[in-house]
Amino acid sequence: MEDDVIHKGTPSQAGVHRTYEESLLRRRGEILERVRQGYEHWKQTGVYGVPQWLYGPPKGKLFQVACEDVPGFGDTSYLEFDAGRTALVSIDWQVDFCGEHGYVDVMGYSLDNTANPLKYAARALRDARLAGLLVLHCREGHVPDLSDCPYNKILRSKIIGKNAVGIGETPAGGLGPLLVRGSLSWGIVKEVEPVSGELIVDKAGKGAALVSDFFLTLQNAGITHLILCGITTDVCVHTIMRQANDLGYWCMLLKDATGATDMGNHEAAIKMVKMQGGVFGWVSDSVRLHAGLSAAGLIE
Amino acid sequence: MEDDVIHKGTPSQAGVHRTYEESLLRRRGEILERVRQGYEHWKQTGVYGVPQWLYGPPKGKLFQVACEDVPGFGDTSYLEFDAGRTALVSIDWQVDFCGEHGYVDVMGYSLDNTANPLKYAARALRDARLAGLLVLHCREGHVPDLSDCPYNKILRSKIIGKNAVGIGETPAGGLGPLLVRGSLSWGIVKEVEPVSGELIVDKAGKGAALVSDFFLTLQNAGITHLILCGITTDVCVHTIMRQANDLGYWCMLLKDATGATDMGNHEAAIKMVKMQGGVFGWVSDSVRLHAGLSAAGLIE
Amino acid sequence: MEDDVIHKGTPSQAGVHRTYEESLLRRRGEILERVRQGYEHWKQTGVYGVPQWLYGPPKGKLFQVACEDVPGFGDTSYLEFDAGRTALVSIDWQVDFCGEHGYVDVMGYSLDNTANPLKYAARALRDARLAGLLVLHCREGHVPDLSDCPYNKILRSKIIGKNAVGIGETPAGGLGPLLVRGSLSWGIVKEVEPVSGELIVDKAGKGAALVSDFFLTLQNAGITHLILCGITTDVCVHTIMRQANDLGYWCMLLKDATGATDMGNHEAAIKMVKMQGGVFGWVSDSVRLHAGLSAAGLIE
Amino acid sequence: MEDDVIHKGTPSQAGVHRTYEESLLRRRGEILERVRQGYEHWKQTGVYGVPQWLYGPPKGKLFQVACEDVPGFGDTSYLEFDAGRTALVSIDWQVDFCGEHGYVDVMGYSLDNTANPLKYAARALRDARLAGLLVLHCREGHVPDLSDCPYNKILRSKIIGKNAVGIGETPAGGLGPLLVRGSLSWGIVKEVEPVSGELIVDKAGKGAALVSDFFLTLQNAGITHLILCGITTDVCVHTIMRQANDLGYWCMLLKDATGATDMGNHEAAIKMVKMQGGVFGWVSDSVRLHAGLSAAGLIE
Repeated sequence: MEDDVIHKGTPSQAGVHRTYEESLLRRRGEILERVRQGYEHWKQTGVYGVPQWLYGPPKGKLFQVACEDVPGFGDTSYLEFDAGRTALVSIDWQVDFCGEHGYVDVMGYSLDNTANPLKYAARALRDARLAGLLVLHCREGHVPDLSDCPYNKILRSKIIGKNAVGIGETPAGGLGPLLVRGSLSWGIVKEVEPVSGELIVDKAGKGAALVSDFFLTLQNAGITHLILCGITTDVCVHTIMRQANDLGYWCMLLKDATGATDMGNHEAAIKMVKMQGGVFGWVSDSVRLHAGLSAAGLIE
Repeated sequence: MEDDVIHKGTPSQAGVHRTYEESLLRRRGEILERVRQGYEHWKQTGVYGVPQWLYGPPKGKLFQVACEDVPGFGDTSYLEFDAGRTALVSIDWQVDFCGEHGYVDVMGYSLDNTANPLKYAARALRDARLAGLLVLHCREGHVPDLSDCPYNKILRSKIIGKNAVGIGETPAGGLGPLLVRGSLSWGIVKEVEPVSGELIVDKAGKGAALVSDFFLTLQNAGITHLILCGITTDVCVHTIMRQANDLGYWCMLLKDATGATDMGNHEAAIKMVKMQGGVFGWVSDSVRLHAGLSAAGLIE
Repeated sequence: MEDDVIHKGTPSQAGVHRTYEESLLRRRGEILERVRQGYEHWKQTGVYGVPQWLYGPPKGKLFQVACEDVPGFGDTSYLEFDAGRTALVSIDWQVDFCGEHGYVDVMGYSLDNTANPLKYAARALRDARLAGLLVLHCREGHVPDLSDCPYNKILRSKIIGKNAVGIGETPAGGLGPLLVRGSLSWGIVKEVEPVSGELIVDKAGKGAALVSDFFLTLQNAGITHLILCGITTDVCVHTIMRQANDLGYWCMLLKDATGATDMGNHEAAIKMVKMQGGVFGWVSDSVRLHAGLSAAGLIE
Repeated sequence: MEDDVIHKGTPSQAGVHRTYEESLLRRRGEILERVRQGYEHWKQTGVYGVPQWLYGPPKGKLFQVACEDVPGFGDTSYLEFDAGRTALVSIDWQVDFCGEHGYVDVMGYSLDNTANPLKYAARALRDARLAGLLVLHCREGHVPDLSDCPYNKILRSKIIGKNAVGIGETPAGGLGPLLVRGSLSWGIVKEVEPVSGELIVDKAGKGAALVSDFFLTLQNAGITHLILCGITTDVCVHTIMRQANDLGYWCMLLKDATGATDMGNHEAAIKMVKMQGGVFGWVSDSVRLHAGLSAAGLIE
């Protein structure tokens, strides 16, 4: 009957508030109680535990990795992972960043700083594969017509590049145009190349947000925790870590499996993560990752 | 020793490929095998089941809701939810869209179409609350200086608005500036206003992606499945549903708890969801939601 | 000297407010004054003009296209474009959506609805090329390992697909796996294929936001106005149009150069755009686009 | 006639390619020619010019600011701005980051490093206001129920916080809950508080992408160039700069108008920007900004 029909909605002062006082007290209280429990757990065990109230029961085996300088410098704590929800993210190990005649080489930086961590990254990859973690590789690069590359990025690369060779151009002795998808110079180097069944995400930028399908891919795979390695520490690795951290991913950086064009910047990038109790996440290395996976029986 | 130092990475043809032949066969094979299992499950039970291989063991009780015209018109199937990972999303029930002197009223549309579904939305809200589902309200609106509102959106609203009153202006008899955060006209109406502990997300657009923190909020809450109601069906509800669907959220629209300024558009918006076996998700209603929650013992 | 050192910042009640009363009055006032001017211009000329106060002086020739049912049904207005800031966006004209043994064909829909608009799209493309507009093609599809495709999308496609063939699988007589990048079935059809110098953006979803580099590409090209054609009207075309509209792009849909699997949905999708004075933008067709480009001397 | 009807699209090998050989040669050639011209201009003038072929004729006066260590360390170049397309972005000058009993103070860091740059930021703000640049303030903070704050962020803040006080809690002597919108502790400090007509964007994270409407707001205002100041250099300022840079914004950091909790990190953050010819943009200071605005007659 007609009486049942609602002809218009009723204004409400309450509906205008951002949140309601009660709501504020109740929901904030609930989350802060969860945090208090996580804090107590950490106090008793030194472990930043996987929050099962949030993600549900584990999908895989749990394992813990020792992290340095957390919560404060000089301290050690442990970050807990669910093997079924963890991805090893291997970032931008491309000729362009660690090989001859690539983008970094053309700018005149020594390749030692970016190439040498390859051996630690290779160990982390081997362990992650044995443990059955998801492995995801990233590549920075642009489509061949450069339409996904900002003009000022190309310009700056040309101005700094040896002989004025920048993105989209091939240097003398080079393996193809710099930072262009499909170019051999843009490919991932042999030492850490993807193997069967591993994911690859292409990024049109240093970071991943708004310039790639990286976060879509993580979401499709049900991932909550990331273990990061790659190059360069202060540029692509850091930018991705910052973005993932803002979205709530638990990010652990393997400091020996990363490198930068400048050692001071590498060291500073590591330290920056550790500020404020881990402002972008946690710092560990390939040795402690190995130990953590071993202790959990995920690898021998 | 020096021999241990890697001085540069080694180019690899393999590292250039988008994916490797093996990888393609292996990983695609794995996902297609999961899909085959989900398909067999559906064939035997008529249920689109929660994929535990992806999300892990359930966090809450599972429940199933009958959905219409899926996979084809005339068919009925069931969508399964995990109560611990499901949110009821109640969209834009603001004076501006269903109340007097609001944005929609000023444009001359009858409010019956957008206001009447309030009673079904109120039922869905009541049931969701009893069942302990997360409830999240959205509001479309702009900051008071309109800096998050595109110029052409304001212009079009002024041109169509009665007496040339558009977004940011207060109509005769109005409750405040249209679509402006903090205005009583922008508030959620009494019939479905948020209660203690419920979330509110403000959107500077019809959709949520790139104009709100909606997806961040869902991710923080560990949500995988959405039950959608609100107004208007073809504009805000549909835009949010499309975006959530692209990101892999399982979206079920409650057709009786939605409405549009035009009944034909409302009906078409419902039908659009059902094309292609559910191109944007599933369609059900508040009665079937009630039945599904009851059958699972989540409400009496 | 020491007196110059600021040791700490000073709390301020003002710094807490979302916006300040004055700010609200001033900045909102400024934008509403711009809107008032745009409104007066429209009243006098019937033209939604390019806002030079916002974008600066024109980069190219200005042209105007007649749009139907705007601001109200039965009305005609004109949308103004800057040829130097306009892109024709040609969406998802792939075998999978309008060719034999593609994704849409396998689901049993007639191809006439999606294929026939090709001739109007071809005309729009020809005119856009002659006029020197940027042309950008989109393709929906997933990487070969399907890691950027949500599980539920694949599952639904398999359940509705003839012989249970879904995304990532090759149907009998098919040209390759459905909706997979690199497959012939995923390619753009001959009638409207890209020519030299045109852009292509690949999308891992119906829409573009968060599943592609579409908006990055537009920004790199300095685009403010979009002319949209493609398939299907109610799915990919509409989703992209909604997202672009939320971000402030001026979007005009060529209704004869779009099509859907269902004619009713096609018609409704067109009508939805026209509600609320053009809630997602403007509607025109290839004939009026031609006339507008001719009148401006951009084509003969 | 029937012959006119297209019943299906025609597969094309060409439509499958990512880009076409010709396209690659033509479009990439076009952009590289633009880059070559920009490079020649820089070689002759030392100026990274505003690309009018991309943005169109200037909206406002052009001005140039001297930048240090660009393209290489020891070099000086000039970055050109269009006053009509430039925003001064003033980041996170909140009590929580530079005032007593705020988030940073509670973690035990000295406030000198983050508070002292306020005087230089105040100068930059004054100059930007006089010159008529858009001024946009950012604030990091979370809605009162913390639903937009990742659990691990709150947990880490509690573990590092003095007396285990973290985000959402009020420390002894504090001005309100830490990092919560509406709290006095979260407000912008008096020294650089917004004035009438200035924009404010709230961010639910260190960065802006996917956690705020920052980029929407820039796009609505027609901005292409950013001048950045604020705190902390290595966290929020850097994260926003990285994201804006990936999207093609021209970003210049005012090094004296930024600060960090650790001086070494501050210095490293500055240096990181300068690598690779300006990998995230340009570095200058408030004095050189003043000089550049003066030279252009934008201020006296």
